[in-house]
Amino acid sequence: MTPLPPGSAIGILGGGQLGRMLAMAAAQLGFDAHIFTDEEDSPASRVAARTIVADYRDRAALQAFAQSVGVVTSEFENVPAETAAALVAAGARVAPNPEALAIAQDRLSEKTFFNDLGIATAPFAAIDSDADLSMALPRIGFPAILKTRRLGYDGQGQVRIRSAEDAKDAYAQLGAPGLLEGFCRFDREVSVIAARGADGAIAAYELCENEHGGGILSRTTLPAPCGPEVEAEARAIVERVMQRLDYVGVLTIEFFLMQDGGLIANEMAPRVHNSGHWTIEGASTSQFEQHVRAIAGWPLGSTTRPFPVEMINLIGDAADNWEALAREPGAHLHLYGKRDARKGRKMGHVTRLLPPPTPYEPDYG
Amino acid sequence: MTPLPPGSAIGILGGGQLGRMLAMAAAQLGFDAHIFTDEEDSPASRVAARTIVADYRDRAALQAFAQSVGVVTSEFENVPAETAAALVAAGARVAPNPEALAIAQDRLSEKTFFNDLGIATAPFAAIDSDADLSMALPRIGFPAILKTRRLGYDGQGQVRIRSAEDAKDAYAQLGAPGLLEGFCRFDREVSVIAARGADGAIAAYELCENEHGGGILSRTTLPAPCGPEVEAEARAIVERVMQRLDYVGVLTIEFFLMQDGGLIANEMAPRVHNSGHWTIEGASTSQFEQHVRAIAGWPLGSTTRPFPVEMINLIGDAADNWEALAREPGAHLHLYGKRDARKGRKMGHVTRLLPPPTPYEPDYG
Repeated sequence: MTPLPPGSAIGILGGGQLGRMLAMAAAQLGFDAHIFTDEEDSPASRVAARTIVADYRDRAALQAFAQSVGVVTSEFENVPAETAAALVAAGARVAPNPEALAIAQDRLSEKTFFNDLGIATAPFAAIDSDADLSMALPRIGFPAILKTRRLGYDGQGQVRIRSAEDAKDAYAQLGAPGLLEGFCRFDREVSVIAARGADGAIAAYELCENEHGGGILSRTTLPAPCGPEVEAEARAIVERVMQRLDYVGVLTIEFFLMQDGGLIANEMAPRVHNSGHWTIEGASTSQFEQHVRAIAGWPLGSTTRPFPVEMINLIGDAADNWEALAREPGAHLHLYGKRDARKGRKMGHVTRLLPPPTPYEPDYG
Repeated sequence: MTPLPPGSAIGILGGGQLGRMLAMAAAQLGFDAHIFTDEEDSPASRVAARTIVADYRDRAALQAFAQSVGVVTSEFENVPAETAAALVAAGARVAPNPEALAIAQDRLSEKTFFNDLGIATAPFAAIDSDADLSMALPRIGFPAILKTRRLGYDGQGQVRIRSAEDAKDAYAQLGAPGLLEGFCRFDREVSVIAARGADGAIAAYELCENEHGGGILSRTTLPAPCGPEVEAEARAIVERVMQRLDYVGVLTIEFFLMQDGGLIANEMAPRVHNSGHWTIEGASTSQFEQHVRAIAGWPLGSTTRPFPVEMINLIGDAADNWEALAREPGAHLHLYGKRDARKGRKMGHVTRLLPPPTPYEPDYG
């Protein structure tokens, strides 16, 4: 494709912090960001050239949006199928493509897709009824996790099943359609973030090690302590996935790293990802700029990471600690402009290069 | 002062690229940027939460602006005195303070201010009439430069006088009030960018070496090849200036560096500065974030610069080269979203860390 020239508009579905950071990356490259969101006064709209506030199924609003931008992308994977279809019908180029979104937003198609490509996952079974659950549990074993097939995030929409007695309650709680997953006794959680350009070029960042608390990412560090073979395997997997999907943009795959060094794919996110926020200060090109470059048909940027780095999420009232963080030398504070610090809500993050960079000492001779 | 909490609004007078980069830095810290500009569809307004488009002397609009923000700053020094006064009257905190703006926007008060603080300048004379010019020229010598006292920028508003015969034309061209300046046979042009917090703390970046073409900054590089004594002298000067002005925010002083190592103050800018754009990727804290921190009453950030760095301005049609720049590994491209690439107009810039950072090599041992 012909690269989208500076001055064009980049359309972003969703008004949260990922859209906000995408919009700023787009602006840095001379683009205008146009946000489509169902939320008034969203974090992204406050740094964007234009915002359309409408329901994600409002066809007239989607058509106006499609016609105002050079490409449409999304900050979340749960874009309704009819939203993507309406945008395509209105002539928009949607990147990543709707097929990739459709696969990633359904845990069953996602895991089936992984297995079809020879990528290991935890054992799983589709659950459409109480009876399915009873039949699947002996095969999957205990503990197992029952998840909704759609709309799960940050630990929402899942229940652990420790014994046969838990099954009825779990099913009553989540209903169908669901997915029963075996439990992985993993050593670490890691993710790989990569981008594929419109020309098919692929650039991956190194593996990120992730720690969660209450189902929500709390800390990401690099380098992940897992050696070059595992790095290479993760890159090979993400490349296979992106090529198979004819993917354009940034894609993230979360893995369980087993004690034997094996990688078990947990899920993928067809978008920039919380575990990639460290790239803003920690890599030559941020994941946000990389995504904009990819969807605009620009060449991908360098993914070089000069320093060890950690990223800490500020969740709920952790962001109230902004004064101390602002005082800490070398702590890069990011706050998302959310009005209301609800429990479990991602309010910001902090990135630290480790150790903090030292001044370059010129040779005065 | 009590630090302005995240979620507050930062008011910025001016809608150009400096306002745009300030607005994005404010957003990163969780602030909303409100722009006041007389220009529709300005570069800054396209990344800001809110924009008021009005004349800089529109008192009602200024009052509304003052009441919507926690602090007002400016991306340009030529803020009309009545604008600043109207904002103060409406209860706004203006940082830097109107006195600093008033001194910096008049070349005569600026040079007098420098000399009063014992800071060397080129010889100069106030020119209010043709006769003043004839009288001053023998003292100042040839070549000399006649400048308007106000509203000069990027080489505008100045004429060189090579001989007595040039004087009449020069005066006819610029008129009064003006300033006649002696010509410095300088070795290099350098600038120092520093910030002073609301608590009086000062943090300076290292000296920048600047190259100009046609009166417009074309390239900035660090480290400037001038040794620790000159660095220390420049810092001492900028500290003296900021303390004397009870200054809050980022301030820039441009110097001529003479062959004997002496610094001659050329002019000061009470704001973020083109020669500080390298700080976005090249320093721990960008000049834009530093300015926001200062005016918001936050602690200043680290000014550490880990790598040698260069910043190249993209002026006029130089920005048409964006495709090649986007392809260059390690080149950080910034485009300002200006619709019209007029000759001499600053359209963007590129920052390069030199040499480009290499990947950190973990010890898998």
